[in-house]
Amino acid sequence: VSDLIELRDQLRVFTDERDWAQFHDPKSLILALVGEVGELAELFQWLPADAAVTRVRDEPLRSRVGEELADVLVYLVRLADVLEIDLGDAALRKLQGSTTRFPVDEVRGQAPEKA
Amino acid sequence: VSDLIELRDQLRVFTDERDWAQFHDPKSLILALVGEVGELAELFQWLPADAAVTRVRDEPLRSRVGEELADVLVYLVRLADVLEIDLGDAALRKLQGSTTRFPVDEVRGQAPEKA
Amino acid sequence: VSDLIELRDQLRVFTDERDWAQFHDPKSLILALVGEVGELAELFQWLPADAAVTRVRDEPLRSRVGEELADVLVYLVRLADVLEIDLGDAALRKLQGSTTRFPVDEVRGQAPEKA
Amino acid sequence: VSDLIELRDQLRVFTDERDWAQFHDPKSLILALVGEVGELAELFQWLPADAAVTRVRDEPLRSRVGEELADVLVYLVRLADVLEIDLGDAALRKLQGSTTRFPVDEVRGQAPEKA
Repeated sequence: VSDLIELRDQLRVFTDERDWAQFHDPKSLILALVGEVGELAELFQWLPADAAVTRVRDEPLRSRVGEELADVLVYLVRLADVLEIDLGDAALRKLQGSTTRFPVDEVRGQAPEKA
Repeated sequence: VSDLIELRDQLRVFTDERDWAQFHDPKSLILALVGEVGELAELFQWLPADAAVTRVRDEPLRSRVGEELADVLVYLVRLADVLEIDLGDAALRKLQGSTTRFPVDEVRGQAPEKA
Repeated sequence: VSDLIELRDQLRVFTDERDWAQFHDPKSLILALVGEVGELAELFQWLPADAAVTRVRDEPLRSRVGEELADVLVYLVRLADVLEIDLGDAALRKLQGSTTRFPVDEVRGQAPEKA
Repeated sequence: VSDLIELRDQLRVFTDERDWAQFHDPKSLILALVGEVGELAELFQWLPADAAVTRVRDEPLRSRVGEELADVLVYLVRLADVLEIDLGDAALRKLQGSTTRFPVDEVRGQAPEKA
C-alpha cells in the first residue's frame, strides 16, 4: 500500500484519539509546518554549503535532521488530508508538468529560474 | 510500491537529465522548500480561518493549492535523498515517538505545546 | 538617529567582536531568518485566530513573542547590511509603491490578492 | 525620529484607509510574512553561496531583493503593532541579551549553536 496513504491514515488515528482535529484548520497547520521548516533550517544555517552532506552523515546531527524532515512531512500530509487533496498524485502530476516545462535541451546545466 | 520511493527515483532522473544536481546542495534545497512553503502560505493568508477548507473545494484555488503542496513535497523528497535519509521510514518512526510522548489520557482535547 | 541604523551598527560591532562575519553569507542569514520565523509561528500555531491578540497580552507569552519578533528583525537588518541595502529606505519606498498600486476606492474592505 | 515608528504609523494610515485591519489578525500576518520570506529565499536559492553578495550588486536583482527585504519588514512592523509590542526596543534588548549570552572570549570564531 502507498506509504503516503499509510502515513495519512495513521495520522488520522493519532489525531482522533487525542481529539486534536479541532486545532487542525489549514492556517494553523501551515504555521506548524513553518515551525518545522524553521527547525530544519536552524540545523543547517551555519554549516559550510559544501560540507553539509558530509556533516549530516554523523550522529547526533543525522538523527536530528531525520526528525525534522519527518515533522515537515507529517504536517504536510495532515494538511493535504484536511484539504481533501491526494498529495502523492499531486506530486507526480507536478513532476510531469515540470518535465514538459523544462525541456532537457533548453535548460541542461543552467540554474532554473524558480524551478 | 512505496510512492515516496517512486517520487524520489523520478526526481533523480529529472535532475540528472538536466544536470541540476550541482545546484542541489542541502542549504539551497531548503531555501527552495522555503520558497514553496511561502507560496502555499500566500494562498491562505487572508482567508478566514474557519472558511479555508470550504474555499479550497473550489477551482481555481483547489488546483493552485495542490500544486504548492506538491512543490513542497518534491523539494522535501529531493532534500532527504541528497542527505541519504529514508523519509518514509523517518516519518513513521517520528509518529511512533509522538504516540508515546503524548499519551491520550494526558493530552486529550488540549492544544499540544509545540507538538 | 535612525533606529534601524543604530541596530545595524550595534550588530556590526557584535559580529566583528566574535569574528562571526565569516558565517554571515546571505544564504546562511536567510536560513537563520527562517529559523526565527519558525519559532514565531510555533508560538501562534494552535491559538484560536480571534484570541491571539488577547493571549499575547499575558506573560510569559508576551516576552517570548517580543524576543522572536526581535530575532527576525535582527537577522533581517544583518542581511540587508551584508547586501549593502538601506532597509528603512527600501521599506518606505515599497509602501509608497503599494499606496499607488492599491487605490483606496478600488480595494477598500476587500482582501488584497497577495498584497 | 525613529524610522520603525515612522513606518508603523504610515502602515496604520495605509491599512485604515483601505479598511484592511479586519484581515490583520496575528496568524494571517505571520502567513503573509512567511510568503515574503519565501519570495526572498527564491531569489537566492540557486546562487552559489560565495557569489551571492556580488550578484546582488547588479540590477535587476538588487531592486528585487530590496523589495522583498522591505516586504518582510513591513509585515513584521505591522505584526508588532497589532500585538502592541515595541519592535525597536525588543531588538535592542535582545541584542544586549545576546552580548551577555555569547561572551567574546568563549565564542570567538566559532559558529554559534542556533545563535
